Amino acid sequence: MLKTLKEQVYEANMQLPALHLVTFTWGNVSGIDRQKGLFVIKPSGVAYEELRPEDMVVVDLDGNRVEGKLNPSTDMQTHRILYREFPEIGGVVHTHSAHAVGWAQAGRDIPAYGTTHADYFYGPVPCCRSLTPEEIDAGYEVNTGVVIVDTFRGRGLNPVHVPGCICRSHGPFAWGKDPAQAVYHAAVLEEVARMALYTLTVDPDAAPAPQHYLDKHFLRKHGPNAYYGQGK
Amino acid sequence: MLKTLKEQVYEANMQLPALHLVTFTWGNVSGIDRQKGLFVIKPSGVAYEELRPEDMVVVDLDGNRVEGKLNPSTDMQTHRILYREFPEIGGVVHTHSAHAVGWAQAGRDIPAYGTTHADYFYGPVPCCRSLTPEEIDAGYEVNTGVVIVDTFRGRGLNPVHVPGCICRSHGPFAWGKDPAQAVYHAAVLEEVARMALYTLTVDPDAAPAPQHYLDKHFLRKHGPNAYYGQGK
Amino acid sequence: MLKTLKEQVYEANMQLPALHLVTFTWGNVSGIDRQKGLFVIKPSGVAYEELRPEDMVVVDLDGNRVEGKLNPSTDMQTHRILYREFPEIGGVVHTHSAHAVGWAQAGRDIPAYGTTHADYFYGPVPCCRSLTPEEIDAGYEVNTGVVIVDTFRGRGLNPVHVPGCICRSHGPFAWGKDPAQAVYHAAVLEEVARMALYTLTVDPDAAPAPQHYLDKHFLRKHGPNAYYGQGK
Amino acid sequence: MLKTLKEQVYEANMQLPALHLVTFTWGNVSGIDRQKGLFVIKPSGVAYEELRPEDMVVVDLDGNRVEGKLNPSTDMQTHRILYREFPEIGGVVHTHSAHAVGWAQAGRDIPAYGTTHADYFYGPVPCCRSLTPEEIDAGYEVNTGVVIVDTFRGRGLNPVHVPGCICRSHGPFAWGKDPAQAVYHAAVLEEVARMALYTLTVDPDAAPAPQHYLDKHFLRKHGPNAYYGQGK
Repeated sequence: MLKTLKEQVYEANMQLPALHLVTFTWGNVSGIDRQKGLFVIKPSGVAYEELRPEDMVVVDLDGNRVEGKLNPSTDMQTHRILYREFPEIGGVVHTHSAHAVGWAQAGRDIPAYGTTHADYFYGPVPCCRSLTPEEIDAGYEVNTGVVIVDTFRGRGLNPVHVPGCICRSHGPFAWGKDPAQAVYHAAVLEEVARMALYTLTVDPDAAPAPQHYLDKHFLRKHGPNAYYGQGK
Repeated sequence: MLKTLKEQVYEANMQLPALHLVTFTWGNVSGIDRQKGLFVIKPSGVAYEELRPEDMVVVDLDGNRVEGKLNPSTDMQTHRILYREFPEIGGVVHTHSAHAVGWAQAGRDIPAYGTTHADYFYGPVPCCRSLTPEEIDAGYEVNTGVVIVDTFRGRGLNPVHVPGCICRSHGPFAWGKDPAQAVYHAAVLEEVARMALYTLTVDPDAAPAPQHYLDKHFLRKHGPNAYYGQGK
Repeated sequence: MLKTLKEQVYEANMQLPALHLVTFTWGNVSGIDRQKGLFVIKPSGVAYEELRPEDMVVVDLDGNRVEGKLNPSTDMQTHRILYREFPEIGGVVHTHSAHAVGWAQAGRDIPAYGTTHADYFYGPVPCCRSLTPEEIDAGYEVNTGVVIVDTFRGRGLNPVHVPGCICRSHGPFAWGKDPAQAVYHAAVLEEVARMALYTLTVDPDAAPAPQHYLDKHFLRKHGPNAYYGQGK
Repeated sequence: MLKTLKEQVYEANMQLPALHLVTFTWGNVSGIDRQKGLFVIKPSGVAYEELRPEDMVVVDLDGNRVEGKLNPSTDMQTHRILYREFPEIGGVVHTHSAHAVGWAQAGRDIPAYGTTHADYFYGPVPCCRSLTPEEIDAGYEVNTGVVIVDTFRGRGLNPVHVPGCICRSHGPFAWGKDPAQAVYHAAVLEEVARMALYTLTVDPDAAPAPQHYLDKHFLRKHGPNAYYGQGK
């Protein structure tokens, strides 16, 4: 069942330690088959070195486990909400990568200080608000997803143009057209969080890049007039 | 004698360089056999690459070497006090991991800024006070243990819920149900110390995570209603 | 065509990941054959692990692709302007190395705080101004090169004595007598950016090294009285 | 000639990249044969991967090359002064390790913030003053050594108890009883510089460790009552 997608999700999960984005089991990647309405996600708490493609868990968009003996990642419900509300995305990833967590713990958006950021994120990486005690009681992981979606809708953000966020007191979520691109964006998010920290160290009052820089860099990689790469 | 425990302690010690928690010989792990009342600890000042399971030293809870030709780690007395006073623990580790040392040298608790922290430490990582000159003269390593225990009792902390601390002007100690888990907690402590440093860099006045976040994350991994992992 | 130069440029590009100067495809190196008036550059958006010497693209000094099936790096026009205006240089490199980007995003010159810097860069590493919206519309990559050249001319800097710069809100460019030396200078620039960040952390008001230090260190490695190395 | 010492010096030099203490060729180690009054040092500007034991250069205490085809390290004269004035030492090392350079460029002693430091350096790591233009003209490398020696004599420091320093606007020198121990101390110096930077980040007004801590830690590893290690 969904053998190719399971392998893609497995490979994407294995990229997390390879890209130094996780310590121990602190991350998870999923991917969705939009036609079948099913997504595949890492099992909870399994070490990466022991993970196999066949361990991936299949879940439907109501959160029911459809196949797999292991429990899905505890963050499964957050992935589910993102798939349900952001129909353009095909892969989701959550990590505790350290620099992104630093910004999330400080409760601040990561400003778009430069072109590395602007090449992938059109505007600041939003920091989503904390959940209330009631929201946590009612369903922590579901409501983490709900608050992400509300943040994007409330700010008028397109999740394709801003493929990730940080959740206050918690850490980053990122997404993309497929599991591999979701992980790529998670790596970009960590790297821009690192660069932004260095920027603040040099100048605590540093300003974001001018808007025309952000436009230029994002649009030379994205949209109808993109000219980066080999036109693939 | 205690062959299995020696191998566990050896393996846990070898995890310290693998997890980048030690420079040179600056760390040591022990494990206890509660039934026999004996613990096994790394010998003092031996390089990790030369260490063998049979080099581990067996010590009783009065601090007497029961087996082994090498001197035990100089920190053996601290381990001993922790085993004697914290009957729930089965492994102890001491390192000089750099970010945890940074907080210890600044003399500040590591605030529970987020969920990475809260998944393993229920509340701040306490910074234990310096020893007085008299305490040092009377027995530096023993009294390091005594001050750790006093800190936990004085603050009403459960060493199972807060599996480590930092000692002022010195560095971290961590513990767990066995040597492997003690090392795991030492790695978590270093990682949350690193994230907390980044948090302070973004916002020197950053506040800890809300209490309901700390409750939620700790309790989804610990206690009767835990639901992280595979129920092992 | 230009087989030796292609191999040199390929090897220099492969040094970027080896020296930890790039994430993903975020960097490019070129080298020029001054007699033929042609330069060789990395193709755009190709992963380093898939790169082969024969993928290198040959471009003339008007920016026309002379050989190669792949699109040249989007930064090709910046390289072209630097070759045209700095006739002493034989290789150019662009990266998004994180510490240099930190300074670029803060919009500050990297001060010549010490001898590591002075051994290779005679004076501060200049931070070139942002482009205006009009300059970006008229040709972002060309005008990035023009602003670099203007910065060096306006400040009276010799590009052989200051073999690199940082572009505001963007990142570093470096150059040298050939592609290998350009990459060497890019690595030096990243390392001095890192050291300068640590210097600011210790003392936010740190002063540059005395001028006689800068003179001494630069001149013991460069010019007629140099005495570092083996006289090669 | 001095075959064993050449091999020791070669091995100690090769430890510099292994311990991440150097970039490119930015470091050098030497060792002395006190009976013969000769020391052996790395040649200038040779890449570590190309270095061989037989490339080491033999120099006498007047600075004359006694054997070897290659030029000795440009810092040879600094090593020479240290050997001449500190008769207790058998090995010297110079690096540009980044955190130690950060403190040197800020012109501040590295405070003895904790026990990692106190285990090897008895008191702060001194930051030696800049040379005057006249001192540089009269002999930069010789006078670098002279200023180090003056700093130790002026402050009443024993070079065996404080086995290294940082030179303002430049970087660290360290030493030991032999080349291997000199490199060990250089690695300690870099690590305590790193920890001290983290300490300052947590608390810019952090105080050094209490004097009785410094006494205790230094003396449990050094002197007649030392009890760390296996009594080797």
